[in-house]
Amino acid sequence: MRRTSLGDAICPVARTLDEIGDWWTLLIVRDAFQGKKRFSEFQKSLGLAKNILSARLRHLTAKGIMEKRPSVNRFGHNEYHLTDKGRRLRLVLTALRQWGEDNLFIEGEQMLVAHDRTNRPIARLQLMNQDGRPLELDEIVVTPGRKRATKRRVR
Amino acid sequence: MRRTSLGDAICPVARTLDEIGDWWTLLIVRDAFQGKKRFSEFQKSLGLAKNILSARLRHLTAKGIMEKRPSVNRFGHNEYHLTDKGRRLRLVLTALRQWGEDNLFIEGEQMLVAHDRTNRPIARLQLMNQDGRPLELDEIVVTPGRKRATKRRVR
Repeated sequence: MRRTSLGDAICPVARTLDEIGDWWTLLIVRDAFQGKKRFSEFQKSLGLAKNILSARLRHLTAKGIMEKRPSVNRFGHNEYHLTDKGRRLRLVLTALRQWGEDNLFIEGEQMLVAHDRTNRPIARLQLMNQDGRPLELDEIVVTPGRKRATKRRVR
Repeated sequence: MRRTSLGDAICPVARTLDEIGDWWTLLIVRDAFQGKKRFSEFQKSLGLAKNILSARLRHLTAKGIMEKRPSVNRFGHNEYHLTDKGRRLRLVLTALRQWGEDNLFIEGEQMLVAHDRTNRPIARLQLMNQDGRPLELDEIVVTPGRKRATKRRVR
């Protein structure tokens, strides 16, 4: 349904959405965070057609979000690993997860995100000012950056 | 490209993605945060075909993320406003924005998100444990919730 590229949009939200591509891409990233590496593991987890999964993995490697490496254990096979850029999507996934937990679930039904050593759930993400004071959702404004371009439309 | 509904997925990320629907939906929400209310304002900002924008707004109101109200100032016209559920997407947009700023922009080029009274940029979103200690991206694990269902595949 996307008609125009948002890749040169001035808005970082639009540019991010363009870079990620579509929802499946984020679910592949989510699976990679959970330790999946092989094509067959992603395929089994997501139930995606092979040609679609191939295209998504190509997109992710082309964008530098994942990288393809030869498997150490299985000769002739490849694996897909998150790059640093890909690992930085953890926050995006956490925000999506938190919103889902708050709005779409009955409590206790869902997977939890925890600190690996203590196994306690991580704290909720929160908007804060530079001094660490939590901000309410309606205390936020969007303002032009320093070198604001004249073009503001997203297209 | 989405073949299966993720609406009953056990994973909150998948369920959120299903609820939001597609990227355009999030850009409409972004515009609403910036004060846009009218169909024509969204249309101008996004450059979307009217029938597509109509469908997206219908989706957002059906999911309770936005609500349609008669305009107070313009008789016979409607406006679209974020509900509380919609306003809670602010964190998701902030996480997408931050990733874009970190990975896809030259510094200073983009719009800024600021605290409305001080006009200073808000603090970066950060993963923390329950005691407020920042966590590194590799310190996080995903574990089953209390009432974990047996079905773990997303489909």
